[in-house]
Amino acid sequence: MRITTVGLDADDTLWHNETIFRLTQDRFRALMANLAAPATLDARLAEVERRNLSLYGYGVKGFTLSMIETAMELTGGEAPGRLIADILAAGREMLTHPVEPLPGVEAALADLAEDYRLVLITKGDLLHQEQKLAASGLGGRFSAVEIVSEKDASTYERVFARHGTGAARSAMCGNSMRSDILPALEAGAYAAHVPYAITWAHEAADAPQGHPRFAELPSIAQLPRWVRGLT
Amino acid sequence: MRITTVGLDADDTLWHNETIFRLTQDRFRALMANLAAPATLDARLAEVERRNLSLYGYGVKGFTLSMIETAMELTGGEAPGRLIADILAAGREMLTHPVEPLPGVEAALADLAEDYRLVLITKGDLLHQEQKLAASGLGGRFSAVEIVSEKDASTYERVFARHGTGAARSAMCGNSMRSDILPALEAGAYAAHVPYAITWAHEAADAPQGHPRFAELPSIAQLPRWVRGLT
Repeated sequence: MRITTVGLDADDTLWHNETIFRLTQDRFRALMANLAAPATLDARLAEVERRNLSLYGYGVKGFTLSMIETAMELTGGEAPGRLIADILAAGREMLTHPVEPLPGVEAALADLAEDYRLVLITKGDLLHQEQKLAASGLGGRFSAVEIVSEKDASTYERVFARHGTGAARSAMCGNSMRSDILPALEAGAYAAHVPYAITWAHEAADAPQGHPRFAELPSIAQLPRWVRGLT
Repeated sequence: MRITTVGLDADDTLWHNETIFRLTQDRFRALMANLAAPATLDARLAEVERRNLSLYGYGVKGFTLSMIETAMELTGGEAPGRLIADILAAGREMLTHPVEPLPGVEAALADLAEDYRLVLITKGDLLHQEQKLAASGLGGRFSAVEIVSEKDASTYERVFARHGTGAARSAMCGNSMRSDILPALEAGAYAAHVPYAITWAHEAADAPQGHPRFAELPSIAQLPRWVRGLT
């Protein structure tokens, strides 16, 4: 068997994530309705997030801090106290949001786990990702969990060498072209893109054209058959 | 040689951390001087941090959110905007604070790296810990880096199995009895406590009495000789 190891992204591949950020941003817009136009708020929040990304990294805590900073900037430092408390509460709710596997995930993982080592490879807050994996009930399917600060080719080389038999005998599956697909292909792995309904702008990238190790799958339900066909 | 692997804690073992939290808390006290008595503020902040620990985990972003929450609570939701902006700035400065190895650290690691595999084992924000290690210039000494959400006996078992030859042939060094010493001993490793000037209350615990695999060292400078004596 050619493939020994299957890497899986977590957020928006195994469970909803971007949707929760979007819903929180809708709530933030509503909280700020009397203080800033929605388009102004969206643009400023995106700018603050981009500015803070190298410092805060990915995850809910950094997003919460960026919402507070955006509120302060858009109100000239005069944000009502109630508003800040509401933003803190919105961030806390994101951290305790129930985690339900996306459709097809449980069956696909059960199927793959029979023949392959499964490795969860994800960015974000260490504690929060661990909590989400525990809440999802999917933890038992994975031989290893790697929570990383950035996903580049060297990340995939290292992870597939550590937990498998190297990138050339591994396949990666995720919703982000930029983080899951392109760097995994660069590392020498196979990669299957399973799109999520919405993509964070920061994660968008073009699909590779005619790459021999790449596949676009409409759903994670197709993943086991695709992996088994890689001989 | 009995010992093959030496685990090292990072914050307050290799570089200052608690001091930076304390200095930021001093600054928070000054910012709130007209709004809350220092003792009231300290007590409330400790309570908010404790309440948030399971949700936010360890690290600067969670601490910043807890300072903002404390400010909101102590002002009945009427914290001046300038204050919130100043707290955000204080948090950002913690994240970009220069990282300098504590006295004796560079020499001790250079000495140990000649004969042992060194593994950094630390809690906290994934991205921030990676940034601190890079800024410290110590990264090249370590064979592996494990940033974990909690340090218990199973953590040390897993890390020393993965990166070394098991806990029984490993020694752990750190400033926290609760996180570095007691669980490493429980996992079957040797453990050397090197106290830092101040200890976060949450990390305090009694020293083990007469434990055959435990040592109290006044400085990390004594670590290489102690490890070499474990035969």
